[in-house]
Formats: sequence, structure tokens, C-alpha cells
Amino acid sequence: MVREEPVRQRLLAEATRLFAARGFEGTSVQEIVLAAGVTKGAMYHYFDSKDDLLHEIYARLLRMQMDRLTRIADGPGTIRERLHRAAADVVETTTANLDDSKIFFRSMHLLATEKQKTVRAERRRYHERFRDLVAEGQRTGVLSDRVPAELVVDYFFGSVHHLGTWFHADGPLTGAQVGRHFADLLLTSLGAGDAGE
Amino acid sequence: MVREEPVRQRLLAEATRLFAARGFEGTSVQEIVLAAGVTKGAMYHYFDSKDDLLHEIYARLLRMQMDRLTRIADGPGTIRERLHRAAADVVETTTANLDDSKIFFRSMHLLATEKQKTVRAERRRYHERFRDLVAEGQRTGVLSDRVPAELVVDYFFGSVHHLGTWFHADGPLTGAQVGRHFADLLLTSLGAGDAGE
Repeated sequence: MVREEPVRQRLLAEATRLFAARGFEGTSVQEIVLAAGVTKGAMYHYFDSKDDLLHEIYARLLRMQMDRLTRIADGPGTIRERLHRAAADVVETTTANLDDSKIFFRSMHLLATEKQKTVRAERRRYHERFRDLVAEGQRTGVLSDRVPAELVVDYFFGSVHHLGTWFHADGPLTGAQVGRHFADLLLTSLGAGDAGE
Repeated sequence: MVREEPVRQRLLAEATRLFAARGFEGTSVQEIVLAAGVTKGAMYHYFDSKDDLLHEIYARLLRMQMDRLTRIADGPGTIRERLHRAAADVVETTTANLDDSKIFFRSMHLLATEKQKTVRAERRRYHERFRDLVAEGQRTGVLSDRVPAELVVDYFFGSVHHLGTWFHADGPLTGAQVGRHFADLLLTSLGAGDAGE
């Protein structure tokens, strides 16, 4: 990940902790700067508002996942191998940063409309890159095209975004194991296309 | 669905509308009774609190889905047919009551701990009934048992619970069409077990 300035990092860490404990609605900017041990002025140097903090908590996870997806999609391997790798990877990074995505999906509707639009557009780019992988497999006949690629992406990412409601780091399966199982389910659900494989 | 008393029904309808428009946090009991045209006393005859209203909005959807699942699971057809029917049906009833589940998943974390436990237990019973269908198919060899039934259920219901973030009644696909596609993906992802079919 990109190196972040310590004050910025501390503000994001304390905001994440407080939003998780008391909810986005129940946390004030004053509490965040107190917990991070900085002045309000310092905070407003990095973030425009509490909305901006919530947005950035998710946006930095999404940037990291976009980088990894791009590397996997453009990397070596057959389309099935790359799709499996990308699917398992996004489950693993989501479980490793579970608070970030949990807080975000809970409170996204409280963001100002413009900010909501920005995040939706950022996530859309991620989903489109993922959908392109599925579509490439369908076009070349190695994946079944019975279900439209767009809907396959909505189906798969519903499961990913919902990890926060049931996954626990101390549960019976690691994030990597859940990732492999989810990727197996995704790949199997896309069966074999005309070209088999 | 069970016949409800008109006042109770009106309170639930107005609460749903207000929670959707202003959020659970941003809506007061006073606003709900005003909108429903009843007194606070009348409301407290039916509901203990605002928490109780939020709980009931989701609980009545869940009861309806549980009834339908039980009928389908205990009904005629092979295990693959019943699982396909049950999966398509829960997608369709969720899209037909999208506000109810959307509001609930957004605000569930704001409920008192005891209420959260109650809902989780109710949903768990639903998921267990669904999981039993999958497990029956795996045991009898008509479904692949590569992924544990419990995880298959978490995977599938992530997609169902996330419909509220992208499905629109005026979108390109109806709830029934999305239901058939999701059910196809689920069934295909469970491949053929030892017994084929």
C-alpha cells in the first residue's frame, strides 16, 4: 500500500475504531481528533469533513483491491486461473480489512449525495474490471454465458460485501480458505463454455 | 400473508416509508404516529419502541419467507428442483419487498443487543432450513459436497441480502428473472454429486 503520513493514518485508524464502536452517526469530529491526539485544524488539513473520513476508509481499501485486481487480471494464467485468483484475493483482502468495509456498507447511505456518487463510480470501475474478466471468458467460450456477466458480478460481490455480517477472524475458516471456497463456487457456477477446458 | 389489524399495518407502512426516506436514526416516534394518524398510546399498544417497529418490518418479511421455504422444501420435486425453486423464490420476495430488507440491513446494528440476538436467531432458523436442503442433496450425492453446506448458504444469502444496493424495480430484469439466474448460478455451482442427475 501507499505510504501514508502518520497523522493522516492515525486519524483514519481512530475514526475506524470509533465508527465501529459507536456508529458513524454517534461519533463526533471532536472525539476523533481527541482520540488521534491532533487539533481540529490538523484534521481539516487532511479531511474536509466526517463524511470525507468515512469515504476514505473505504476508498483506500478499494484502491488497494483495484491495484491487486489489475495485477492479477493482466498477469499470467488462463482466464479461469486469473478469475479464480482474483475472486479468492478480494475475499481475502476484505476479511483482512473487515471493519473498513463493514462500517462503510452500514453508513454509506448517510453520506452526502455527491460523495455517494463518487464512491459508486469508484466501485463501478472495480466491478467493470472484474466483469471484463468474466466477459472475456464467456466470449472465448471457456465460461458459460447463460447468465449475463454483469449479473454474475452482482451475485458474487453480494457475497463479498456481506462477509462483515458473519465472518470472524477467530472462526473455523481463515479468510484465505473462505476465498478459495467462494472462488470455487464462482468458477463452478460458470461451468464450462463451448470451448470446455 | 397473515391478516393484520389496520392500525398496526398503517404504523408499519409509515415507519417503513420514513426510515427509508430519513433513516432509522433520523425518524422519531412522534413523526411515525403523526404520519399514521394515531396517538402514541395506540402505537405503544402494538409496539414497545422504535426498535420494535424496525424489528417487525423485517420479521414479518422473514416469517413470510420461512412459510414459503417450508412449503417448497416439504413439497414435491427432486432435491435440485426444490432447491432451485426455493432460491428463486427468496430472491423474488426480497425484490418485491426491497425497502423492508434494505432498511433493516442498514440499521440492524442500531438495535439493542437483545433485539439483535432475536433477529439473528430467527434468520438462523431460516438459513438452517435452507442449509438442510443443500445438505440433503450433498448427502444423497445429487449435489457436490466440495464446499460445506453452511458456507454455500452464506455465499448465496450474501447475494440475496445485497439486492437492495443495486436492484431496481424499473431495471432491465424483473425480480423473477434475477431469481431464476441466481438459482441457476447456485445449482450450477453445486455441480453434480456422485449420483449425477
